[in-house]
Amino acid sequence: MELLKEKILKDGKAVGDNIVKVDSFLNHQIDIELLQNIGKEFYERFRNDDINKILTIEASGIAIAAITALYFKVPVVFAKKTQSLNLDKDTYTSKVYSYTKEKHYDIKVSKKYLKKEDNILIIDDFLARGQAALGLCNLVEQSKGNVKGIGIVVEKGFQDGRELLLEKGFKLESLAIVRKIYEGKIIF
Amino acid sequence: MELLKEKILKDGKAVGDNIVKVDSFLNHQIDIELLQNIGKEFYERFRNDDINKILTIEASGIAIAAITALYFKVPVVFAKKTQSLNLDKDTYTSKVYSYTKEKHYDIKVSKKYLKKEDNILIIDDFLARGQAALGLCNLVEQSKGNVKGIGIVVEKGFQDGRELLLEKGFKLESLAIVRKIYEGKIIF
Repeated sequence: MELLKEKILKDGKAVGDNIVKVDSFLNHQIDIELLQNIGKEFYERFRNDDINKILTIEASGIAIAAITALYFKVPVVFAKKTQSLNLDKDTYTSKVYSYTKEKHYDIKVSKKYLKKEDNILIIDDFLARGQAALGLCNLVEQSKGNVKGIGIVVEKGFQDGRELLLEKGFKLESLAIVRKIYEGKIIF
Repeated sequence: MELLKEKILKDGKAVGDNIVKVDSFLNHQIDIELLQNIGKEFYERFRNDDINKILTIEASGIAIAAITALYFKVPVVFAKKTQSLNLDKDTYTSKVYSYTKEKHYDIKVSKKYLKKEDNILIIDDFLARGQAALGLCNLVEQSKGNVKGIGIVVEKGFQDGRELLLEKGFKLESLAIVRKIYEGKIIF
C-alpha cells in the first residue's frame, strides 16, 4: 500500500535495527484519514472471505479494527490483556510470549463473543515474531470458529512471524512489509 | 440519546447496584453502527467548540474516539496506562486513582502530541467518580492546551464525577445518564 509506505518513510522512525516507530500516526497519535485508507485496503483484500467479525487485541489494534469494521459492516471484538471488571469469568484464554518484555502474558476473550459459526478477520498494527497473532488465532480455534484472514498494517519482514502463520495455513495480508532497517533507514 | 438508552436497556446488564455492563456492544465486543451514531451525536454537541484533537485513554475509549474523530476530521491521541517501547521518555504523566482496583496508576502521553494551541475533546466510555477524566484534563493542562469538552457515553449519575468536572468549569456531555440501579434494573 503505497500511501502507507510513504507515510512510514515521512513520519515513521527507525530505532536501532529492529524498531519501526509509528506513534505519530498509528499507535499513540492516530491519523484517522490514513486509517480510513487502511480500512478500505483491508476490505479490498478480504472482501470475498465472508468475514462476519473482526478480532484484535488491546490497545494498538483497536482503532485500526474499528475503522476497518466500517467497511465490512461487522462488529469488533478486542482481546484483553488485563483482568477487568467488565470481563466475564468464562473466557477463552491464550498465553502470548513477548520477546520485548521477555515474559508471557494472558489474552482473554469472553466466550460469548466468539462462536463456532464465526468467520474472523484478525487485525493488528504490527507483525514481528507472530506471537500475538498466533495467540488470537488460538482463541478462535478454541471457540471452533474460523480464522479467515490476518490483516497487518506493518510487518517486520526480517522476523519470522509470516513463516509461522503461513505454516499454519492462514491467509496473511500485510499492508507494508519492512525488509530491513539499515543505517537508520527503513527499507521496504 | 434515545437509541443508546434503548440499547443499554436491551443488551446492557446491571450487576449489583453499581456496575452497568455494556461489554456486548461497547467495551469488549463493539457495535460499530451504534458507535457511528454515538460519534455523530458527539459531533452535534461539540461541533462549535473548534475541536482539533480528541484525547482518550486505553483501552475502552479508543474505538469510540476513533469513530467520533471521523465526524470531526481530527486526529486521536490515546493516553497509555503502561510503559511501552513505543512511548517516548518525554511524557506528560498524571496519577489516576482507581476506586475499583483501590490503587493509583499512571497515565502518559508523549509531549509531542499535546500542544498549547490544541483544543481538545476528551472522550471516554464511562464516567463514574471522574478520576480518569480529571487525569486526562490534567495532561492537557500540563501541555497548556485547552480542554474544550468532555464527551462520555455512559455516566453513572449516582456518583460524583459530574460534580467534580463541572466544579472545574469543564463542558460535559453524557449520552446516557444512569440515575440508579434498582433491583437489577437500570433507570435513566
